[in-house]
Amino acid sequence: MYLFMKTIILTGDRPTGPLHLGHYVGSLKNRVELQETMTQYVMIADQQALTDNAHDPQKVRENVLQVALDYLAVGIDPAKTTICIQSLLPELPELTLYYLNLVTWNRLKHNPTVKQEIQQKGFGEAVPAGFMVYPVSQAADITAFKATLVPVGEDQLPMIEQTNEIVRHFNRIYKREVLVEAKAMIPKTGRLPGTDGKAKMSKSLGNCIYLSDSTDVLAKKVKSMYTDPGHLRVEDPGKVEGNPVFTYLDAFDPDKAGLEEMKAHYMRGGLGDMVVKKRLLEILEAFLTPIRTKREALAKDPQAVMKILLQGSERARKATSATLKEVRQAMCLDYLV
Amino acid sequence: MYLFMKTIILTGDRPTGPLHLGHYVGSLKNRVELQETMTQYVMIADQQALTDNAHDPQKVRENVLQVALDYLAVGIDPAKTTICIQSLLPELPELTLYYLNLVTWNRLKHNPTVKQEIQQKGFGEAVPAGFMVYPVSQAADITAFKATLVPVGEDQLPMIEQTNEIVRHFNRIYKREVLVEAKAMIPKTGRLPGTDGKAKMSKSLGNCIYLSDSTDVLAKKVKSMYTDPGHLRVEDPGKVEGNPVFTYLDAFDPDKAGLEEMKAHYMRGGLGDMVVKKRLLEILEAFLTPIRTKREALAKDPQAVMKILLQGSERARKATSATLKEVRQAMCLDYLV
Repeated sequence: MYLFMKTIILTGDRPTGPLHLGHYVGSLKNRVELQETMTQYVMIADQQALTDNAHDPQKVRENVLQVALDYLAVGIDPAKTTICIQSLLPELPELTLYYLNLVTWNRLKHNPTVKQEIQQKGFGEAVPAGFMVYPVSQAADITAFKATLVPVGEDQLPMIEQTNEIVRHFNRIYKREVLVEAKAMIPKTGRLPGTDGKAKMSKSLGNCIYLSDSTDVLAKKVKSMYTDPGHLRVEDPGKVEGNPVFTYLDAFDPDKAGLEEMKAHYMRGGLGDMVVKKRLLEILEAFLTPIRTKREALAKDPQAVMKILLQGSERARKATSATLKEVRQAMCLDYLV
Repeated sequence: MYLFMKTIILTGDRPTGPLHLGHYVGSLKNRVELQETMTQYVMIADQQALTDNAHDPQKVRENVLQVALDYLAVGIDPAKTTICIQSLLPELPELTLYYLNLVTWNRLKHNPTVKQEIQQKGFGEAVPAGFMVYPVSQAADITAFKATLVPVGEDQLPMIEQTNEIVRHFNRIYKREVLVEAKAMIPKTGRLPGTDGKAKMSKSLGNCIYLSDSTDVLAKKVKSMYTDPGHLRVEDPGKVEGNPVFTYLDAFDPDKAGLEEMKAHYMRGGLGDMVVKKRLLEILEAFLTPIRTKREALAKDPQAVMKILLQGSERARKATSATLKEVRQAMCLDYLV
C-alpha cells in the first residue's frame, strides 16, 4: 500500500442472530477504535445471510435491527462509520454478475473456505448456487467500496485472495486501474472460546454470551461456565490455559496485575472456581451494563435505528455507484454518458 | 394459462454480431407480427453476451447498435414493442442473485443446454462461472417482465423449465404468487440452413446472409451457395430436399405455385442451379432492399437509435422494478416501505 493512500475499511456481519462477546473481542472493539482514524464502512450483509437462509427471511430481517442495535450500543458511531444494509446497494449484485465472468467454475469449487463451510453446514449435494458464488459477491462488496483493508479471521484469507484475483484480472483485461486490491487485517487478539470451552462462540452450540443478555442470564451463563475439569477441590492446583473463565478475564479485566496474581493463586491451588467466576461476573456486568442500557434505549425507537441504516446506505451508495460507473465505462457499458 | 390473462412476450438477442436471414425467419418476422396483438419486450442481452465475451466488450457494445438497427429496419416498432438493453435494468442482477439461492449447484451443472454449449464453445475446465449461472440470469429476465410466452428454439426448452422451477420454488417458499410461469413458443417455421447447406447460419462458419449485406455481397453469397452436389449437368435430375437454395425460396418466395413448378422441373432435370439462384437473388434483393434502405437511413443518426433504446429501457424498468419490489416484499427486504 502507498504511504499516502487513504485506508478504507469494509467490514460487517451476517444478520442471523444477535452479536456476542466473541464478536466484540474479535471485531466490534476494533471498529470502535478504527473509526477514529479511518474511513470505515460496516455492512449488514442481509443478502449474504439469505444465501443459506432463503427459507427464513423473517429471521434475517429481524436480525438486521438486532445487529444494528448491537453496533450502536457498543459505540460504533454513525457519524464516523457508514453503517449500511447490503441489499440497499443494487450496485453489488451487478458487480457480482460481471465478476462471475472472470472466475472459472472450477476456481469457485475449490475455494477452501467455501468447501469447509459446505461441510459444516451439511449441504451435501444440495448446496445452493448462491452459496457457491458468495466469494464473488464478497469481492463485489469489497471492491465496490475500494476497500484497502478488510478485517477477517484467518479462515477467511482465501476470500481476500479470490477478491484480489478478480481485481487483477479485471484491471488487466480492461486495461485500467479501476479496482483496488485489499489487504486482510487479522485481529491481534485471539478468538474468544464458548462458555463450554469450545473454540468458538456459536449460536447453534448455545455457548454464547450476548451483548444483549440480561443481568440474570449473564449470571447463569457465567456460573455454569466450563473451567479446568481437573480442578475438583479448592485446594487442588488448577489450569489457566484452556480455561475460558481466565480467557475472558484476559480479554475484559482492566486490572492486569490483579489478574496475574489470581492466575498464580489458581495454579498453585487454594482458589475456587466460584471466586474466579464471581470476579468475571462483576467485570462482565460492569462492561455490559452501559451497552445494555444504551441498547434498551435505542430499541424503544426502532424506526430511528432504521433511519440511521437508510441514511448510511445512501451514503454507501455514493461509493458503490461511483465504482460501478467506472466498471461500466471500462466494460463499454456507459450508454448513459 | 387463463383465458383472460394478458400475454406478455419476452424475447431478445445477444449482441455479438449483426442479424441474418436465419434470425429473420426464426424470430424477427414473428416479432413484427406479435407486436400487433401482444405486449412484447425485446431485450438486447449485452450482459449475457459478456458472459463469454468478457475480454471483448467493444464487440458487444458495437453490436448493440447493429442489432437495434436490424430490429428497426425489419419493422419492429418501438411504439408497439419495448426494445431495451439488459444492462440498463439493474433489477435483473439482483433477481439473479436471489434466484441463485433457490437453485442447487448440481442442478446448474446438469442443465442440458449449458452442457452442450460448453462443449460447442470449447471451454473445457475453464468455463466462466458467469456462463454456468446464465440460465438463472435468464430466469431473472423472463420473470422480471412476468413474461408468459417466450419464443425459443427446441434446444432452449431446458431454460424455460429451469425458469419455471425457480418460479414454483419462489412462490412456494415465500407463500405468495409473485412470479409467473412462462410457456415456450417454438417457431412453426423450421430453421434456415447456412449458405453452405449446414444446419444453421453461424457467424463463425461464415455461412450467413446478413440483413445488412449490400447488393454485391448478397449476389456473391447466393451465387456460391451449396446446392445438390449430385446435380452436375443441367439435364440431371436434382434434389430439392436439403438444397438450401430451395429452402430459402420456401421461406421467401411469395409465388408458391411458381415455386412448386420450379421444384418439379428441378427434380425431373433440365433446370440449372444458376437459374434457380437467379430467382432467389431477385427475391432476396427485393426483400432486403427496403430493409437495407431503412437501415442505412437510421445508421446515419446513431444517437437517435440509442435514444430509442434508452427510452425503451426506461419503459422496461417500470415492469422490472415493480416485480423486484414484490420479490423484496416477499423476502422481507422491504426496508423502504
